[in-house]
Amino acid sequence: MNWVIQENKFCEEQISRMGNRMLCGNGYLGIRGTLEEYRKEQMPAINLAGIYDQVGSGWREPLNAPNVLYTYIVVDGKKYTLPETEPLEHHMELDFRHGIFSRETSWKTDRGIVTVRSEHFACRDEVHRIAMQYQVTADFHAEVELYTGIDGDVWDIHGPHYDTLESAEEQGCSQMQEAAYENQGRSQMQGAAHENQGCIRMRGVTHEKGDTVDALETVTADFPCERHLAAGEKEILRRITFVTEIGRSYYIEKTAVIFTSKDEGWNLQRAHRMLQESKVAGYDALKESHCRKWEEKWAVSEVEIDGDEEAMKALNYSIYHLLSIAPTHASNMSIPARGLSGQTYKGAVFWDTEMFMLDFFLFTDPDVARSLMKYRVDTLDGALEKAAHYGYEGAFYAWESQEGGFDACSDYNVTDVFTGRPQRTYFKDKQYHISAAVVYGIMRYTQVTGDQTLLQEGGLKTVIECANFYYSLLLKKAAGDFYEIRDVIGPDEYHERVNNNAYTNRMAKFVFQSAAKLLKNLESEAAGQEYQVDELIHRFEDAAAHIYLPKPDQDGVIEQFDGYSRLEDASLDEVRSRLLHEKEYWGGAYGVAAETKVIKQADVVTMLNLFSQEYEPEILKKNWEYYEPRTEHGSSLSSCMYAMLACKCNMPQKAYPFFMNSARADLKDGGKEWAGLVYIGGTHPAAAGGAYMTAIEGFGGISVEDGTVRSAAVLPEGWNKMKFHICCRNIRYAVEVGRQGTKITEEGNVHSDAL
Amino acid sequence: MNWVIQENKFCEEQISRMGNRMLCGNGYLGIRGTLEEYRKEQMPAINLAGIYDQVGSGWREPLNAPNVLYTYIVVDGKKYTLPETEPLEHHMELDFRHGIFSRETSWKTDRGIVTVRSEHFACRDEVHRIAMQYQVTADFHAEVELYTGIDGDVWDIHGPHYDTLESAEEQGCSQMQEAAYENQGRSQMQGAAHENQGCIRMRGVTHEKGDTVDALETVTADFPCERHLAAGEKEILRRITFVTEIGRSYYIEKTAVIFTSKDEGWNLQRAHRMLQESKVAGYDALKESHCRKWEEKWAVSEVEIDGDEEAMKALNYSIYHLLSIAPTHASNMSIPARGLSGQTYKGAVFWDTEMFMLDFFLFTDPDVARSLMKYRVDTLDGALEKAAHYGYEGAFYAWESQEGGFDACSDYNVTDVFTGRPQRTYFKDKQYHISAAVVYGIMRYTQVTGDQTLLQEGGLKTVIECANFYYSLLLKKAAGDFYEIRDVIGPDEYHERVNNNAYTNRMAKFVFQSAAKLLKNLESEAAGQEYQVDELIHRFEDAAAHIYLPKPDQDGVIEQFDGYSRLEDASLDEVRSRLLHEKEYWGGAYGVAAETKVIKQADVVTMLNLFSQEYEPEILKKNWEYYEPRTEHGSSLSSCMYAMLACKCNMPQKAYPFFMNSARADLKDGGKEWAGLVYIGGTHPAAAGGAYMTAIEGFGGISVEDGTVRSAAVLPEGWNKMKFHICCRNIRYAVEVGRQGTKITEEGNVHSDAL
Repeated sequence: MNWVIQENKFCEEQISRMGNRMLCGNGYLGIRGTLEEYRKEQMPAINLAGIYDQVGSGWREPLNAPNVLYTYIVVDGKKYTLPETEPLEHHMELDFRHGIFSRETSWKTDRGIVTVRSEHFACRDEVHRIAMQYQVTADFHAEVELYTGIDGDVWDIHGPHYDTLESAEEQGCSQMQEAAYENQGRSQMQGAAHENQGCIRMRGVTHEKGDTVDALETVTADFPCERHLAAGEKEILRRITFVTEIGRSYYIEKTAVIFTSKDEGWNLQRAHRMLQESKVAGYDALKESHCRKWEEKWAVSEVEIDGDEEAMKALNYSIYHLLSIAPTHASNMSIPARGLSGQTYKGAVFWDTEMFMLDFFLFTDPDVARSLMKYRVDTLDGALEKAAHYGYEGAFYAWESQEGGFDACSDYNVTDVFTGRPQRTYFKDKQYHISAAVVYGIMRYTQVTGDQTLLQEGGLKTVIECANFYYSLLLKKAAGDFYEIRDVIGPDEYHERVNNNAYTNRMAKFVFQSAAKLLKNLESEAAGQEYQVDELIHRFEDAAAHIYLPKPDQDGVIEQFDGYSRLEDASLDEVRSRLLHEKEYWGGAYGVAAETKVIKQADVVTMLNLFSQEYEPEILKKNWEYYEPRTEHGSSLSSCMYAMLACKCNMPQKAYPFFMNSARADLKDGGKEWAGLVYIGGTHPAAAGGAYMTAIEGFGGISVEDGTVRSAAVLPEGWNKMKFHICCRNIRYAVEVGRQGTKITEEGNVHSDAL
Repeated sequence: MNWVIQENKFCEEQISRMGNRMLCGNGYLGIRGTLEEYRKEQMPAINLAGIYDQVGSGWREPLNAPNVLYTYIVVDGKKYTLPETEPLEHHMELDFRHGIFSRETSWKTDRGIVTVRSEHFACRDEVHRIAMQYQVTADFHAEVELYTGIDGDVWDIHGPHYDTLESAEEQGCSQMQEAAYENQGRSQMQGAAHENQGCIRMRGVTHEKGDTVDALETVTADFPCERHLAAGEKEILRRITFVTEIGRSYYIEKTAVIFTSKDEGWNLQRAHRMLQESKVAGYDALKESHCRKWEEKWAVSEVEIDGDEEAMKALNYSIYHLLSIAPTHASNMSIPARGLSGQTYKGAVFWDTEMFMLDFFLFTDPDVARSLMKYRVDTLDGALEKAAHYGYEGAFYAWESQEGGFDACSDYNVTDVFTGRPQRTYFKDKQYHISAAVVYGIMRYTQVTGDQTLLQEGGLKTVIECANFYYSLLLKKAAGDFYEIRDVIGPDEYHERVNNNAYTNRMAKFVFQSAAKLLKNLESEAAGQEYQVDELIHRFEDAAAHIYLPKPDQDGVIEQFDGYSRLEDASLDEVRSRLLHEKEYWGGAYGVAAETKVIKQADVVTMLNLFSQEYEPEILKKNWEYYEPRTEHGSSLSSCMYAMLACKCNMPQKAYPFFMNSARADLKDGGKEWAGLVYIGGTHPAAAGGAYMTAIEGFGGISVEDGTVRSAAVLPEGWNKMKFHICCRNIRYAVEVGRQGTKITEEGNVHSDAL
């Protein structure tokens, strides 16, 4: 299989899309697939995980580091950059086996052709490090000025986030003392000549909390040149001048290091040391070590599909994205809904992680899965505060979770296109199913890995507090004998403030069941002292037994919420035709979908997918067939749920297009990139995770229960064989799913820090 | 006091407003205060009580009868009508002591001045009859063609409602057989000469149910003239031609009769007979008998205020409107929110009747009060159906009640000014307090009149079914110990879908208390058999004891609903300044008021006014002072509640402007006449009733308990004395409220059909 995706011409309209599609990342940072010469208008970003800032009343969002890759050339006094100067040829590619981005661009000048070739990667083995090689060639004696340095004028959606940007140039690394930099202001340092080992650096100080982001880089050149330094308001650049020999390639190699004040153990000294070591090792060595690390990842993550190379490529490309954003460097960090592709959705963690991405990590790298769930356990305080704020008990997790569980979700998450007014939305205060996703993740982690330590280290408390939360939501009619949950938003966000959403109620029941089960198994005296165990068990068992769950109607259809069946049964096309503005929101109180049966995404189908064993296969199928034509699939979370449920209904051919839709979420064009003037594009790791789940658990039919791996495969046409590895209870298995059956072979223990 | 209101110049912009302000009515029909020559563009109407029609998807609305007053003149071949031809002088007035509209208009012609004078009234003693006198004078030998007849091209908001309009001309009345008319088509009958006693008629057949409306008129002239008849598509007209002598007045007198297929005992023969008798009696005799009847009304209804003629006039003008629309002819009919002034608000009955108008009739004409409440009792089936439709028990009354209790309220009662789309509103399905208003009316009727027959004839059942309804709304938290009512709209419609509205919850408690009380007193075995009395008493007492009622906070303020106190405390001016379109709706999900503390109308204040005895005076005052500046008074129901509560807080001077605002609701300019392209103007009988209540129960401090009339007067400055009559328990009292005390004198038994 070819592990490369490429673009062979330059298209300005595709700049933002390519930024996502050709992303390189290592979990600590994501480098958008943009060109070195891009300024903020072209949305380059070195997006940082887990550090946020808010300016004024703008949305709180993650930081983009100063752009250490910023580089461009001037030839014979004229600047050659994209998108400003039309190229003769342009080629871009991503080697997604190794997370290496490269580009090659030629321009015609008055005297001949000049070509730039570069590649860069976010080091897999050392997540603070970025490496780049940049090469200039000309077919004439070009007078080249090569500018390279750090651009602090970064792209932001709700920025700028750096109140101050301090830049400096340093002669050498090893002997510098950190204290010496502290009071250095912006300075003009033009005209000075410098040695190869000198580095430049920039420090941004954020607005909200005064966090710092340090970006350092050093450059070596393999040719004699003159070098100058220029520090502007928001940039610090080297000017390297030389005259090309015909046909000779002029290389520079850059190593950069990025760290923030939130990174324990990091300071300038350590960064300098790493720069120095990297320079000594050289670009090729860095690349080799980086690729080796990637190969280790693939050894346990790759999914081979014999008979469908297109599907195999799309699936492994999805896996590439999941690997690129996995927080391997941290023990309690999660993944934002748009990965590390920028500031969309505030860089916040959604239910996407638990419900769509978790399984991939459980099956390939349980340490990462633990980190994802430990993030939730460690942000329980935020969830307790949120519940209390709204007058509930227990833990109500953030709909858009940032550090500490802070809910970044706005009460006004949509702008009315007709009035320009912010529109009151209820994602934050009524999308109660988020806490259930956290419990689902903890329970699934525990069940698949067998690791009890997460429960011991706060997981149990998290589950109980989530159960307390749902218990405080329960309402009973004066004359009723069951519990209801009213005024909610389910996964289908187009219908707000509904009662008894089938998904939400079933998930609440799952939470009650889980809490009761854990309490019953409770051996730890400590936990027993904190809670009145018997009373809680009684309470949660009563809640689980009496919560209202809508039953299939005479046609086998489960009503998504009370009154859904009475809504207008308008077709998707009909509803779309009612739009008066292409960007208007379909949901909200008056959106075109609100009073119809058209839904945004899988809702009942998601519930059935999770609890398929509780329903007759016929019911699963009837609901699939009822809801699918009524689903806009306006969320990238939708397709995989339809794909997986179709597999459970033994309809792999119906599943296939939905699977491909998920697997190609970041490969295909189309999709929403802009909402009004706000950029909402980015990568779709939940779709990637959904594609993985569909392949492994849907087509592969893999399930894990009590430590046993089972398969009930339903391969789509043309798939002769599927091969992959999965972990379960600290053992790694090689799985080979064929049309004649499945072979599951034990490979040995998983190397894990946690287990 | 001068009982006349007048306009001394013609103003085209005021046409619709004058139509309301100078309305004549008799409870069966309302004649808008428009000119005889007006066509539908000027919104003339003979609006009929209790008969409705719906065309297509338009709103269901009451009928306007064919316009039997239609008349205009042509002089020397040129038409003289308003608004087309500018008058030399124009004068219009309403004698609201007797419900007589008159106008006098002069035009300058090429040869001299011609003057039209007319008056008309809706007969008080015979509600199917209308009488008009029309007079032409000229100061030269004018060649006059006087056209008069019936205009079937009536003004409608959601019409046209007549699928067919059949017109006919008949030679004599007495000997005509009804059968003879049935197959007469539209015909051209020009050129034939006719006798005085001939009548013309028109029958409209409605779209929805094929109801018929018959309008007949006959005309006598006091001068020799030529007469012709012209029947057009939608009109049938006489042409009466004559040449004026200088200075002589040429009179015609018209009597008309209107009846519908819903009027029992009515047919053409009866109508002809009435026309014949009316003609024999003559206009002056009809007018005398009409005025006599009005004087009888005033003898028990007038409120004299010594020291404030402006207030006295406004108040009695308000009373005039209440008398004009009182359904004296019926035993189970109510009053629409816009009286008989047109089709606004679908001619439907709202809570306005019980909460704002009822007291006036209780105190002056208990038979009418009984009819109002019997209408609710007799429409219980509609309320049971509505409750069942929404999945509730018991009786959920129509928010906009038409015949049979049909709820005319649309799910989309507002049009979004930005998109032109109908906007989902919840008046129909979530304004639960309507059923409590019905119970309140029944209980108050019973309490003031002492009449138990209403309860026996269905009233008891109504109260119990309303209690069953509220019981089915009650929700209790799994861990809670009180009942809540969630997802409601209270009187303040700008805040939708709120929980625990203070007014709604207290009214529900009142319903539970009332039902329990009635059941305890129950002696009728019949009712006892129908209900499980003991169980119901237990249930309703439990509900009354445990329903949640918000308590005053540390500042003494009662929260209007859960979370109100956390809304933005923007001023009324600030909120108004946020409007992007002058006609946009302040409420709904995204209206400018929705997320602020600005409310449409008295809400907590209405609750406190009804249950003032349960609160310390200081609490009443604190809430008045808190909510008043936050109230838009966007409903005509608002001012009187503030006025009355101010009286209870011993602040008559603060009450006074709100009282005048209510009393002048139909006298003052301003107020909303149009919503987008929909006419929403009309009279405001609830404000009129509120003004009456403020005068009698607020300033006069009158209360009635166990058959005893008490007074705790707080007269505003300048009021030396207030005199009026009230009924209580079949006895009429003369009341004289002075600054030194109140004198209450028994006057004898009330003449009542019911008591």
